[in-house]
Amino acid sequence: MTNESIQPAPAFLSAIQSLFGKRARLDAADLLVYGYDNSRRETTPHAVCFAQNHSEVRALVQLCAEYEVPLTTRGLGSGTTGAAVPINGGVVLSTERFAGLVKVDPENRLAIVEPGITNAVLQEALAKHGFFWPPDPTSAAYSTVGGNLACNAAGPRAIKYGTPRDNTLGLIAVTGEGKTIKTGVCTSKGVVGYDLTRLLVGSEGTLAIITQATLRIVPLPESSRLLRAVYGSLQGATSAVANIMAQPETPSALEFMDPVAVSLVRDYAEAGLPDRAAAVLLIEVDGNKSGIEQAVKCITAAAANEDLVEIRAAENEVETAALWTCRKSLSPALRKIAPKKINEDVVVPVTRLTELVSGLQELSAQYGVQIVSFGHAGNGNLHVNLLGNPSAQGELQRMETCLQELFSLVLGLDGTLSGEHGIGLEKRQYVSMEIEPNAMQLMQQIKLQFDPKNILNPGKLFPDP
Amino acid sequence: MTNESIQPAPAFLSAIQSLFGKRARLDAADLLVYGYDNSRRETTPHAVCFAQNHSEVRALVQLCAEYEVPLTTRGLGSGTTGAAVPINGGVVLSTERFAGLVKVDPENRLAIVEPGITNAVLQEALAKHGFFWPPDPTSAAYSTVGGNLACNAAGPRAIKYGTPRDNTLGLIAVTGEGKTIKTGVCTSKGVVGYDLTRLLVGSEGTLAIITQATLRIVPLPESSRLLRAVYGSLQGATSAVANIMAQPETPSALEFMDPVAVSLVRDYAEAGLPDRAAAVLLIEVDGNKSGIEQAVKCITAAAANEDLVEIRAAENEVETAALWTCRKSLSPALRKIAPKKINEDVVVPVTRLTELVSGLQELSAQYGVQIVSFGHAGNGNLHVNLLGNPSAQGELQRMETCLQELFSLVLGLDGTLSGEHGIGLEKRQYVSMEIEPNAMQLMQQIKLQFDPKNILNPGKLFPDP
Repeated sequence: MTNESIQPAPAFLSAIQSLFGKRARLDAADLLVYGYDNSRRETTPHAVCFAQNHSEVRALVQLCAEYEVPLTTRGLGSGTTGAAVPINGGVVLSTERFAGLVKVDPENRLAIVEPGITNAVLQEALAKHGFFWPPDPTSAAYSTVGGNLACNAAGPRAIKYGTPRDNTLGLIAVTGEGKTIKTGVCTSKGVVGYDLTRLLVGSEGTLAIITQATLRIVPLPESSRLLRAVYGSLQGATSAVANIMAQPETPSALEFMDPVAVSLVRDYAEAGLPDRAAAVLLIEVDGNKSGIEQAVKCITAAAANEDLVEIRAAENEVETAALWTCRKSLSPALRKIAPKKINEDVVVPVTRLTELVSGLQELSAQYGVQIVSFGHAGNGNLHVNLLGNPSAQGELQRMETCLQELFSLVLGLDGTLSGEHGIGLEKRQYVSMEIEPNAMQLMQQIKLQFDPKNILNPGKLFPDP
Repeated sequence: MTNESIQPAPAFLSAIQSLFGKRARLDAADLLVYGYDNSRRETTPHAVCFAQNHSEVRALVQLCAEYEVPLTTRGLGSGTTGAAVPINGGVVLSTERFAGLVKVDPENRLAIVEPGITNAVLQEALAKHGFFWPPDPTSAAYSTVGGNLACNAAGPRAIKYGTPRDNTLGLIAVTGEGKTIKTGVCTSKGVVGYDLTRLLVGSEGTLAIITQATLRIVPLPESSRLLRAVYGSLQGATSAVANIMAQPETPSALEFMDPVAVSLVRDYAEAGLPDRAAAVLLIEVDGNKSGIEQAVKCITAAAANEDLVEIRAAENEVETAALWTCRKSLSPALRKIAPKKINEDVVVPVTRLTELVSGLQELSAQYGVQIVSFGHAGNGNLHVNLLGNPSAQGELQRMETCLQELFSLVLGLDGTLSGEHGIGLEKRQYVSMEIEPNAMQLMQQIKLQFDPKNILNPGKLFPDP
């Protein structure tokens, strides 16, 4: 991608250098590294700054506002939509050195963090107190909490424990005018004024830059069990999902794999999947030790249908870990089987999953594009991957048309375009398919209130004008 | 309260009469009934309309916008903050005839409702499918879901299952410009655009009028047990709350009663409370049958301290129901023991509850005002009631000063002014104690985007300019 953005004034660049010293970088080598994310798009910013605290963020935003320089905030760049790619140049603010764990408070069930802390470091600290923060994206080891909040990134556990939006109590942030705002509360209830907290979560750094978050934390369950249910057909698996969700034992994860995903899993020596396996569900239940067998029993009953080939519980921690590794390695593994991967995260009501996977099969046949889907079926949230070879004649175009059809299919099933990746650059041209003009207009007006000069992550989330 | 509002133009009144026919009321007797809520404030609107569907609401808002007539939406008037009192006159829109249950969909764990349905009618319909909607305000029998959403009204179950904000997936609403907006999704995940859904929940009818809500519903637990823990001191009870919240078994309710509340409960013949009872916790746990005894055991262990006099589980459903009746009758019972009741719903972190109740004792002594507190201790959310006789010399003034001190106390303990009642009229002069100017300004700017002519519930939620 060519960066056609305007070079910031020398006075601006001097100002950020006096503000950040060596933590402001202007040289080409450094800039290159901070110009891309996991969308594989890239462009080059004019400067990268490593803020270490709230005042530095505020001072930087004020400078950017004064000089009207675009400011793109990033965690560690694991996002898949290009939300952290500085398409308009300007400054990239990296939060990687603003990564403190301010407080863990188990009795009040909260943790206070700075934005750059990784999800995994936070979880490790919380586990010592017997707690966790529900969002568990596959990228947990190398994605930041700030990034998780910006994209509302969830993961398997969201089915029982919710997304970042459901697990954030309050925020401190800096608006596009360089003003500090404090949103929300540090308690589990609060209804004073409008809910700015949840407005900021999922806003991809377009409204304000989060400098501190008060997170809702949850006690680790005493025990958990992982079941693997193997189905002879895709539809057997998807219809079981709806059945499982209609009964009282809410799984703590309910993951789906389609035939291609199953074949990737087969390559793991230990998988031991029956030959007839066309689709697999991984189902986790958790809770206290006394109740867990009953939960397993209820889930097993709900998962049964005429297409069920086999259902069994992992027998020990090693087997459990192996199953999760299979599941979590699917996304990176796909990179290896095709040069080009369009990785979506569409959501449909769980009763429509069967129609979704049938529709995907038809689209795949119609456009000659290989489609692999797997993911958080209990939320109706599938990672639908379109695989192809961009050097093959017309393949990219076919993939794009197929994608557009996929989105129409999803919306026709009362679904949504994104469950946890967000919009960024990748999906902005499709947003208007889902959000109607009145709501869109309000969102854009809200953006202007927070960021009147449109300096915060410009060109993201909204459709091209 | 005198209504100094402007009489709407005759053309406006004719227009709403042709729109609503007999469902528009202009006569004094009818207007009187729709001029108050449970805050006991009252004023008289110029008209009351009973809309039955979305188009009627939209047409009414468009008329009000055209003629700049204030529009106050109400459910059944059980709110305690005056949010439904039409202080600027104009039109009251009652949702009581717009009360359909559009859909119950257990597999997708959602229900779609119109705003005027009562919480109780909804729960009854959901229970037939083995589900419930988490919010359970004491007013459930006579409060509407629309009102619950407008105020983010919760109740005891919020400790485990969350508030309306946590249990709403999407909305259809009409903005102050008379435009229809569709917010959110009908799935448990979704991150396309800004979260307008949670912005509307808790906004007290000041941003848009909700005409349809897609609610997240939850399976009814298989079993539950209610424990009553009696403490010899206030502090014994409040410190037990923090202990209970620090262990893994999250109660489905954790309710507190202070000594005055305990003495009111004593009047119930069946209460059988030990003489030394100074404070009581009601603790409910729920889950599957196999796990429930373990949950009871963990809670019992966490509740124990040197001030614990007695803890026991209700032995049967009759006893359970009796205990809940005691708890839920406290709020109305207080009306009987004092002519004037200021009923607050402050929240503090659970570790600060002990300081809160000590502070309340000091304030009570200092101002000579009787203070009774009880409520949702697991959320740190206490209903603090200031009781007095307004005809006694200087008593009202003392109560007001005491209230101001109470709010300072709460904010000093990192708390919030309201957990579930909202602001309405009653607390608007105190909002600035909690919300700082930058956030307040953004909220007011957001209000203007939704409602540029300020016709939707004007004079509520925000402080007086």
